[in-house]
Amino acid sequence: MSITRIDRTSPPGPMMSRCVIRGDMVYLAGLTARDRSADITGQTRQILDQIDHYLAQAGTDKSNLLQANLWITDMANFSSMNAVWNDWVDPENPPARACVKADLAVPELLVEIMVTACR
Amino acid sequence: MSITRIDRTSPPGPMMSRCVIRGDMVYLAGLTARDRSADITGQTRQILDQIDHYLAQAGTDKSNLLQANLWITDMANFSSMNAVWNDWVDPENPPARACVKADLAVPELLVEIMVTACR
Amino acid sequence: MSITRIDRTSPPGPMMSRCVIRGDMVYLAGLTARDRSADITGQTRQILDQIDHYLAQAGTDKSNLLQANLWITDMANFSSMNAVWNDWVDPENPPARACVKADLAVPELLVEIMVTACR
Repeated sequence: MSITRIDRTSPPGPMMSRCVIRGDMVYLAGLTARDRSADITGQTRQILDQIDHYLAQAGTDKSNLLQANLWITDMANFSSMNAVWNDWVDPENPPARACVKADLAVPELLVEIMVTACR
Repeated sequence: MSITRIDRTSPPGPMMSRCVIRGDMVYLAGLTARDRSADITGQTRQILDQIDHYLAQAGTDKSNLLQANLWITDMANFSSMNAVWNDWVDPENPPARACVKADLAVPELLVEIMVTACR
Repeated sequence: MSITRIDRTSPPGPMMSRCVIRGDMVYLAGLTARDRSADITGQTRQILDQIDHYLAQAGTDKSNLLQANLWITDMANFSSMNAVWNDWVDPENPPARACVKADLAVPELLVEIMVTACR
Protein backbone atom coordinates (compact mmCIF):
# COMPACT_ATOMS: atom_id res chain seq x y z
CA MET A 1 0.00 0.00 0.00
CA SER A 2 1.86 3.09 -1.18
CA ILE A 3 1.93 6.54 0.44
CA THR A 4 1.06 9.70 -1.49
CA ARG A 5 2.43 12.98 -0.13
CA ILE A 6 0.93 16.28 -1.28
CA ASP A 7 2.54 19.75 -1.05
CA ARG A 8 5.78 18.42 0.30
CA THR A 9 7.47 21.69 1.10
CA SER A 10 8.38 24.22 3.72
CA PRO A 11 11.50 26.34 3.06
CA PRO A 12 14.29 26.13 3.84
CA GLY A 13 13.78 22.37 4.31
CA PRO A 14 11.38 19.65 3.23
CA MET A 15 9.90 19.79 6.70
CA MET A 16 6.53 18.24 6.14
CA SER A 17 3.79 17.19 3.79
CA ARG A 18 0.54 19.13 3.94
CA CYS A 19 -1.38 15.95 3.18
CA VAL A 20 -0.39 12.29 3.47
CA ILE A 21 -2.60 9.62 1.92
CA ARG A 22 -2.18 5.93 2.67
CA GLY A 23 -4.80 3.47 1.59
CA ASP A 24 -8.14 4.79 2.79
CA MET A 25 -6.64 7.13 5.41
CA VAL A 26 -5.78 10.83 4.99
CA TYR A 27 -3.53 12.71 7.42
CA LEU A 28 -3.31 16.49 7.15
CA ALA A 29 -0.62 18.73 8.66
CA GLY A 30 -1.37 21.33 11.29
CA LEU A 31 -2.61 24.08 8.98
CA THR A 32 -2.47 27.82 9.62
CA ALA A 33 -3.74 30.90 7.79
CA ARG A 34 -1.73 32.17 4.84
CA ASP A 35 -2.93 35.75 5.36
CA ARG A 36 -1.79 36.24 8.92
CA SER A 37 -3.30 39.73 9.10
CA ALA A 38 -6.79 38.20 9.27
CA ASP A 39 -8.71 38.02 12.55
CA ILE A 40 -9.75 34.76 14.20
CA THR A 41 -12.80 34.47 11.93
CA GLY A 42 -10.75 34.99 8.79
CA GLN A 43 -7.91 32.75 9.86
CA THR A 44 -10.27 29.92 10.78
CA ARG A 45 -12.05 30.24 7.41
CA GLN A 46 -8.73 30.15 5.56
CA ILE A 47 -7.70 26.98 7.37
CA LEU A 48 -11.03 25.22 6.76
CA ASP A 49 -10.76 26.19 3.06
CA GLN A 50 -7.34 24.54 2.97
CA ILE A 51 -8.74 21.44 4.65
CA ASP A 52 -11.52 21.27 2.03
CA HIS A 53 -8.85 21.63 -0.67
CA TYR A 54 -6.59 18.86 0.59
CA LEU A 55 -9.48 16.51 1.35
CA ALA A 56 -10.71 17.04 -2.23
CA GLN A 57 -7.22 16.28 -3.55
CA ALA A 58 -7.37 13.06 -1.55
CA GLY A 59 -10.74 12.19 -3.05
CA THR A 60 -12.78 12.79 0.09
CA ASP A 61 -14.54 15.58 2.00
CA LYS A 62 -15.37 16.86 5.48
CA SER A 63 -18.16 14.33 5.98
CA ASN A 64 -15.38 11.76 6.37
CA LEU A 65 -13.44 13.52 9.13
CA LEU A 66 -12.48 11.20 11.97
CA GLN A 67 -10.42 13.32 14.38
CA ALA A 68 -9.44 16.98 14.73
CA ASN A 69 -6.90 18.77 16.90
CA LEU A 70 -7.30 22.54 17.27
CA TRP A 71 -4.94 24.95 18.97
CA ILE A 72 -5.84 28.57 19.65
CA THR A 73 -3.61 31.19 21.19
CA ASP A 74 -6.32 32.90 23.22
CA MET A 75 -9.48 31.32 24.64
CA ALA A 76 -11.11 34.74 24.20
CA ASN A 77 -11.27 33.69 20.52
CA PHE A 78 -12.87 30.32 21.29
CA SER A 79 -16.49 31.25 20.54
CA SER A 80 -15.62 33.17 17.34
CA MET A 81 -13.53 30.22 16.13
CA ASN A 82 -16.30 27.79 17.03
CA ALA A 83 -18.88 29.86 15.13
CA VAL A 84 -16.87 29.37 11.91
CA TRP A 85 -16.22 25.71 12.74
CA ASN A 86 -19.89 24.99 13.51
CA ASP A 87 -20.97 26.68 10.29
CA TRP A 88 -18.49 24.57 8.31
CA VAL A 89 -18.62 21.13 9.88
CA ASP A 90 -21.09 18.59 8.47
CA PRO A 91 -23.75 18.57 11.22
CA GLU A 92 -24.46 14.89 10.62
CA ASN A 93 -20.79 13.97 10.59
CA PRO A 94 -18.65 15.97 13.00
CA PRO A 95 -15.27 14.48 13.96
CA ALA A 96 -13.98 13.66 17.42
CA ARG A 97 -12.33 16.94 18.40
CA ALA A 98 -9.99 18.46 20.98
CA CYS A 99 -9.15 22.15 21.31
CA VAL A 100 -6.57 23.52 23.73
CA LYS A 101 -4.68 26.77 24.14
CA ALA A 102 -1.18 26.96 22.66
CA ASP A 103 1.14 29.59 21.29
CA LEU A 104 1.99 28.94 17.64
CA ALA A 105 5.06 29.32 15.44
CA VAL A 106 4.70 33.10 15.07
CA PRO A 107 2.60 35.53 17.14
CA GLU A 108 0.37 36.56 14.19
CA LEU A 109 -1.06 33.05 13.98
CA LEU A 110 -4.20 32.71 16.11
CA VAL A 111 -5.33 29.17 15.32
CA GLU A 112 -3.95 25.90 13.92
CA ILE A 113 -5.99 22.83 12.93
CA MET A 114 -4.83 19.26 12.18
CA VAL A 115 -7.32 16.62 10.99
CA THR A 116 -7.41 12.97 10.10
CA ALA A 117 -10.01 11.65 7.66
CA CYS A 118 -10.85 8.56 5.71
CA ARG A 119 -11.81 8.24 2.06
CA MET B 1 -16.93 0.89 5.52
CA SER B 2 -19.39 3.20 7.26
CA ILE B 3 -18.70 5.65 10.08
CA THR B 4 -20.69 5.63 13.33
CA ARG B 5 -20.76 8.83 15.35
CA ILE B 6 -21.82 8.72 19.00
CA ASP B 7 -23.03 11.65 21.14
CA ARG B 8 -22.93 14.10 18.27
CA THR B 9 -23.63 17.24 20.23
CA SER B 10 -22.23 20.36 21.74
CA PRO B 11 -24.56 23.37 21.95
CA PRO B 12 -24.99 25.74 20.32
CA GLY B 13 -23.63 23.76 17.35
CA PRO B 14 -23.02 20.19 16.32
CA MET B 15 -19.35 20.83 17.01
CA MET B 16 -18.06 17.32 17.46
CA SER B 17 -18.78 13.67 18.09
CA ARG B 18 -17.68 12.25 21.42
CA CYS B 19 -16.85 8.94 19.70
CA VAL B 20 -16.26 8.09 16.05
CA ILE B 21 -16.12 4.45 14.97
CA ARG B 22 -14.88 3.38 11.57
CA GLY B 23 -14.21 -0.26 10.85
CA ASP B 24 -12.00 -1.55 13.64
CA MET B 25 -10.82 1.91 14.77
CA VAL B 26 -12.31 4.09 17.51
CA TYR B 27 -11.53 7.82 17.85
CA LEU B 28 -12.65 9.66 21.00
CA ALA B 29 -12.93 13.41 21.44
CA GLY B 30 -10.82 15.32 23.92
CA LEU B 31 -12.91 14.62 27.03
CA THR B 32 -13.17 16.79 30.13
CA ALA B 33 -14.87 16.44 33.51
CA ARG B 34 -18.60 17.13 33.73
CA ASP B 35 -18.36 18.19 37.38
CA ARG B 36 -15.82 20.95 37.05
CA SER B 37 -15.74 21.57 40.78
CA ALA B 38 -13.79 18.32 41.27
CA ASP B 39 -10.05 18.37 41.95
CA ILE B 40 -7.48 16.82 39.61
CA THR B 41 -8.11 13.34 41.02
CA GLY B 42 -11.85 13.62 40.59
CA GLN B 43 -11.65 15.21 37.13
CA THR B 44 -9.26 12.53 35.89
CA ARG B 45 -11.54 9.76 37.23
CA GLN B 46 -14.57 11.33 35.54
CA ILE B 47 -12.75 11.43 32.21
CA LEU B 48 -11.52 7.84 32.46
CA ASP B 49 -15.08 6.77 33.31
CA GLN B 50 -16.29 8.49 30.14
CA ILE B 51 -13.56 6.77 28.13
CA ASP B 52 -14.65 3.38 29.52
CA HIS B 53 -18.23 4.27 28.61
CA TYR B 54 -17.51 5.23 25.00
CA LEU B 55 -15.14 2.32 24.44
CA ALA B 56 -17.87 -0.03 25.70
CA GLN B 57 -20.37 1.59 23.31
CA ALA B 58 -17.86 0.90 20.54
CA GLY B 59 -17.57 -2.73 21.59
CA THR B 60 -14.05 -2.49 23.00
CA ASP B 61 -12.21 -1.58 26.22
CA LYS B 62 -9.06 0.06 27.58
CA SER B 63 -6.91 -2.99 26.82
CA ASN B 64 -7.21 -1.95 23.17
CA LEU B 65 -5.98 1.63 23.55
CA LEU B 66 -3.40 2.58 20.94
CA GLN B 67 -2.58 6.25 21.57
CA ALA B 68 -3.46 8.87 24.18
CA ASN B 69 -3.00 12.65 24.33
CA LEU B 70 -3.29 14.29 27.72
CA TRP B 71 -3.29 17.99 28.50
CA ILE B 72 -3.07 19.36 32.03
CA THR B 73 -3.21 22.98 33.05
CA ASP B 74 -0.61 22.75 35.81
CA MET B 75 2.30 20.30 36.02
CA ALA B 76 1.91 20.50 39.80
CA ASN B 77 -1.05 18.14 39.16
CA PHE B 78 1.02 15.71 37.06
CA SER B 79 1.69 13.11 39.77
CA SER B 80 -1.89 13.17 41.11
CA MET B 81 -3.23 12.76 37.57
CA ASN B 82 -0.76 9.95 36.87
CA ALA B 83 -1.76 8.13 40.06
CA VAL B 84 -5.34 7.89 38.77
CA TRP B 85 -4.16 7.03 35.25
CA ASN B 86 -1.76 4.30 36.48
CA ASP B 87 -4.48 2.79 38.64
CA TRP B 88 -6.85 2.70 35.65
CA VAL B 89 -4.69 1.72 32.70
CA ASP B 90 -4.36 -1.98 31.85
CA PRO B 91 -0.79 -2.67 33.07
CA GLU B 92 -0.25 -5.24 30.31
CA ASN B 93 -1.67 -2.94 27.62
CA PRO B 94 -0.87 0.72 28.15
CA PRO B 95 -1.14 2.99 25.08
CA ALA B 96 1.53 5.19 23.56
CA ARG B 97 1.00 8.44 25.47
CA ALA B 98 1.98 12.12 25.44
CA CYS B 99 1.14 14.65 28.16
CA VAL B 100 1.89 18.36 27.89
CA LYS B 101 0.76 21.49 29.68
CA ALA B 102 -2.05 23.50 28.12
CA ASP B 103 -4.80 25.82 29.23
CA LEU B 104 -8.24 24.42 28.42
CA ALA B 105 -11.57 25.86 27.26
CA VAL B 106 -12.52 27.21 30.71
CA PRO B 107 -10.30 27.77 33.76
CA GLU B 108 -12.16 25.20 35.94
CA LEU B 109 -11.02 22.36 33.67
CA LEU B 110 -7.74 20.86 34.91
CA VAL B 111 -7.22 17.98 32.48
CA GLU B 112 -8.37 16.81 29.05
CA ILE B 113 -7.73 13.38 27.51
CA MET B 114 -8.16 12.19 23.90
CA VAL B 115 -7.60 8.54 22.98
CA THR B 116 -7.56 6.31 19.92
CA ALA B 117 -8.34 2.60 20.25
CA CYS B 118 -9.06 -0.43 18.13
CA ARG B 119 -11.80 -3.01 18.53
CA MET C 1 -5.06 -8.64 14.71
CA SER C 2 -2.96 -8.57 17.88
CA ILE C 3 -1.27 -5.56 19.49
CA THR C 4 2.46 -5.54 20.32
CA ARG C 5 3.61 -3.12 23.00
CA ILE C 6 7.30 -2.25 23.28
CA ASP C 7 9.07 -0.73 26.33
CA ARG C 8 5.98 -0.87 28.49
CA THR C 9 7.33 1.01 31.46
CA SER C 10 7.48 4.23 33.35
CA PRO C 11 8.05 4.00 37.11
CA PRO C 12 6.31 4.01 39.44
CA GLY C 13 3.49 2.75 37.19
CA PRO C 14 3.05 1.03 33.85
CA MET C 15 1.99 4.40 32.48
CA MET C 16 2.55 3.89 28.79
CA SER C 17 4.15 1.94 25.99
CA ARG C 18 6.91 3.64 24.06
CA CYS C 19 5.74 1.91 20.88
CA VAL C 20 2.44 0.22 20.02
CA ILE C 21 2.18 -1.91 16.89
CA ARG C 22 -1.12 -3.10 15.48
CA GLY C 23 -1.28 -4.65 12.06
CA ASP C 24 0.50 -2.31 9.69
CA MET C 25 0.29 0.72 11.99
CA VAL C 26 2.88 1.94 14.50
CA TYR C 27 2.07 4.45 17.28
CA LEU C 28 4.94 5.97 19.28
CA ALA C 29 4.67 7.76 22.61
CA GLY C 30 5.57 11.39 23.03
CA LEU C 31 9.35 10.97 23.36
CA THR C 32 11.74 13.27 25.21
CA ALA C 33 15.51 13.44 25.63
CA ARG C 34 17.13 11.09 28.14
CA ASP C 35 20.03 13.49 28.74
CA ARG C 36 18.09 16.54 29.82
CA SER C 37 21.22 18.65 30.11
CA ALA C 38 21.48 18.78 26.31
CA ASP C 39 20.48 21.91 24.39
CA ILE C 40 17.65 21.99 21.87
CA THR C 41 19.89 20.54 19.13
CA GLY C 42 21.03 17.67 21.33
CA GLN C 43 17.59 16.94 22.74
CA THR C 44 16.02 16.87 19.27
CA ARG C 45 18.75 14.50 18.02
CA GLN C 46 18.23 12.19 20.99
CA ILE C 47 14.49 12.03 20.32
CA LEU C 48 14.92 11.36 16.60
CA ASP C 49 17.42 8.60 17.45
CA GLN C 50 14.79 7.03 19.71
CA ILE C 51 12.21 7.29 16.92
CA ASP C 52 14.61 5.55 14.52
CA HIS C 53 15.15 2.86 17.16
CA TYR C 54 11.47 2.15 17.79
CA LEU C 55 10.55 2.28 14.11
CA ALA C 56 13.31 -0.27 13.44
CA GLN C 57 11.94 -2.49 16.22
CA ALA C 58 8.58 -2.28 14.47
CA GLY C 59 10.14 -3.27 11.16
CA THR C 60 9.84 0.12 9.50
CA ASP C 61 11.68 3.45 9.17
CA LYS C 62 11.19 7.21 8.89
CA SER C 63 10.23 7.01 5.21
CA ASN C 64 6.93 5.55 6.43
CA LEU C 65 6.03 8.34 8.84
CA LEU C 66 2.42 9.49 8.46
CA GLN C 67 1.87 12.13 11.14
CA ALA C 68 4.00 13.95 13.73
CA ASN C 69 3.14 16.14 16.72
CA LEU C 70 5.93 18.31 18.12
CA TRP C 71 5.84 20.42 21.26
CA ILE C 72 8.58 22.91 22.13
CA THR C 73 8.78 25.00 25.25
CA ASP C 74 10.15 28.13 23.57
CA MET C 75 9.59 29.24 19.97
CA ALA C 76 13.07 30.81 20.16
CA ASN C 77 14.24 27.20 19.70
CA PHE C 78 12.00 26.61 16.67
CA SER C 79 14.65 27.13 13.96
CA SER C 80 17.33 25.13 15.77
CA MET C 81 14.88 22.27 16.28
CA ASN C 82 13.79 22.46 12.65
CA ALA C 83 17.40 22.34 11.46
CA VAL C 84 17.85 18.96 13.14
CA TRP C 85 14.42 17.78 11.97
CA ASN C 86 15.05 18.86 8.36
CA ASP C 87 18.43 17.13 8.34
CA TRP C 88 16.82 13.93 9.64
CA VAL C 89 13.50 13.66 7.82
CA ASP C 90 13.38 11.76 4.52
CA PRO C 91 13.06 14.66 2.03
CA GLU C 92 10.94 12.55 -0.29
CA ASN C 93 8.72 11.32 2.51
CA PRO C 94 8.07 13.90 5.22
CA PRO C 95 5.02 13.31 7.45
CA ALA C 96 2.07 15.63 8.04
CA ARG C 97 3.32 17.68 10.99
CA ALA C 98 2.12 20.13 13.64
CA CYS C 99 4.34 21.98 16.10
CA VAL C 100 3.03 24.17 18.91
CA LYS C 101 4.44 25.66 22.10
CA ALA C 102 3.84 23.78 25.34
CA ASP C 103 5.50 23.35 28.68
CA LEU C 104 6.55 19.75 29.29
CA ALA C 105 6.66 17.40 32.30
CA VAL C 106 9.81 18.95 33.77
CA PRO C 107 11.44 22.31 32.97
CA GLU C 108 14.67 20.74 31.63
CA LEU C 109 12.79 19.19 28.71
CA LEU C 110 12.78 21.50 25.68
CA VAL C 111 11.03 19.38 23.06
CA GLU C 112 8.73 16.34 22.81
CA ILE C 113 7.81 14.46 19.63
CA MET C 114 5.06 11.88 19.00
CA VAL C 115 4.77 10.13 15.62
CA THR C 116 2.53 7.67 13.84
CA ALA C 117 3.92 5.48 11.04
CA CYS C 118 2.98 2.53 8.93
CA ARG C 119 5.04 -0.52 8.13
